[in-house]
Amino acid sequence: MEEAEMLPADRFSDAERAALYRAIFTRRDTRGEFLPDPVADELLARLLVAAHHAPSVGFMQPWSFLVVRDAAVKRRVHDAFRAADAEAALMFPEDRQGLYRSLKLQGILDAPVNLCVTCDRDRAGPVVLGRTHMPEMDLYSTVCAVQNLWLAARAEGLGVGWVSIFRPDALRAALGIPETIVPVAYLCIGHVSGLRPGPELEAKGWRQRLKLAELVRLDGWDGPAPDGDLRAALDA
Amino acid sequence: MEEAEMLPADRFSDAERAALYRAIFTRRDTRGEFLPDPVADELLARLLVAAHHAPSVGFMQPWSFLVVRDAAVKRRVHDAFRAADAEAALMFPEDRQGLYRSLKLQGILDAPVNLCVTCDRDRAGPVVLGRTHMPEMDLYSTVCAVQNLWLAARAEGLGVGWVSIFRPDALRAALGIPETIVPVAYLCIGHVSGLRPGPELEAKGWRQRLKLAELVRLDGWDGPAPDGDLRAALDA
Repeated sequence: MEEAEMLPADRFSDAERAALYRAIFTRRDTRGEFLPDPVADELLARLLVAAHHAPSVGFMQPWSFLVVRDAAVKRRVHDAFRAADAEAALMFPEDRQGLYRSLKLQGILDAPVNLCVTCDRDRAGPVVLGRTHMPEMDLYSTVCAVQNLWLAARAEGLGVGWVSIFRPDALRAALGIPETIVPVAYLCIGHVSGLRPGPELEAKGWRQRLKLAELVRLDGWDGPAPDGDLRAALDA
Repeated sequence: MEEAEMLPADRFSDAERAALYRAIFTRRDTRGEFLPDPVADELLARLLVAAHHAPSVGFMQPWSFLVVRDAAVKRRVHDAFRAADAEAALMFPEDRQGLYRSLKLQGILDAPVNLCVTCDRDRAGPVVLGRTHMPEMDLYSTVCAVQNLWLAARAEGLGVGWVSIFRPDALRAALGIPETIVPVAYLCIGHVSGLRPGPELEAKGWRQRLKLAELVRLDGWDGPAPDGDLRAALDA
């Protein structure tokens, strides 16, 4: 097997780096802002190509993509959401239930495209390079595909919302997904009227952003907090 | 609680979109190309800030970041890798074991910075918005942080390799991580001599890239394959 020639690992230009960070910092979980305008096939394809270029353990590429545009299918999925959401509300302390119920947590019926991203754990046989000791690595690969797609969607001017309030078996039933396949993410995708300047749960007082420097330790869990230049850069 | 003003969900310029896709398409899992040059604190901080801006279920931000530069700690982690790797090789069919052993699967001792990204499942209490029915969502959030960091590293000219061949308890022991905390990703980070033009496992004949169009179905698992413009765009 011939060795491929290496490409330069060049640093991007300032403008290119700024574009990537812009996608990262302005990406939002979109629930209430979907417009009915259709998503062009070429545009949807670019998102899927971005997802397909995610890293995957053992180059397994365990993902599949179920593109949902049919209104009847969306209604089945929405029913599965509603059942789980009603259960979920009761799990919170009483003084949080009102706020929980006031939040719009999905745009299943509003978004023109829904996308279920699944993981086929058997796609490359029982023994997968890199999955031998951490069996969840194929699920993690599938999540990398979701995040690639999410950032690409931001750059394309589309909003994405990840809906996770489902009993997995109810979501499988709504989409005809076999028991051996894991539905990892259910995404609502579409053009949007705008993007919030920050996370909606922060704006609504549900939970605040943590200070990054407090989440970093040096050389081990009980190691020192960063100081000096690293600390200053994390606090900036 | 006042509603924040919305920002325009504008499509990025062509140059900005190209920069994001460049990061996505040229990102590699780096194992053998690390240079000993130190990674500047400001640069490392930018990667961590990118990770910290990942989506997280219920705005939980369950991640912590253990920055490993100490040679003795790296050696302990490397020992954990070697033990698991020896076990792993024997799991493959005999005719694959030689190729498996010939692959360099980590750069723990070569990369100037190692980074363990963990998930604290208790960070926001037992009931988390969006995690009520899919308990693994906090692990998935942590993976989104890893993918943000990986793309930022590419734009900064750094290589990243994800090492997953560890018994999780051995990795915990090497880094003093409590039993309740999940080590999600162990990353090797550094400047690199170059980037491969495609996945190393593909170049070495381990496994080929799948055709994206075959991984897409419409309106359900048993739905039709895409045709028309979507199919053409996926095949392009």
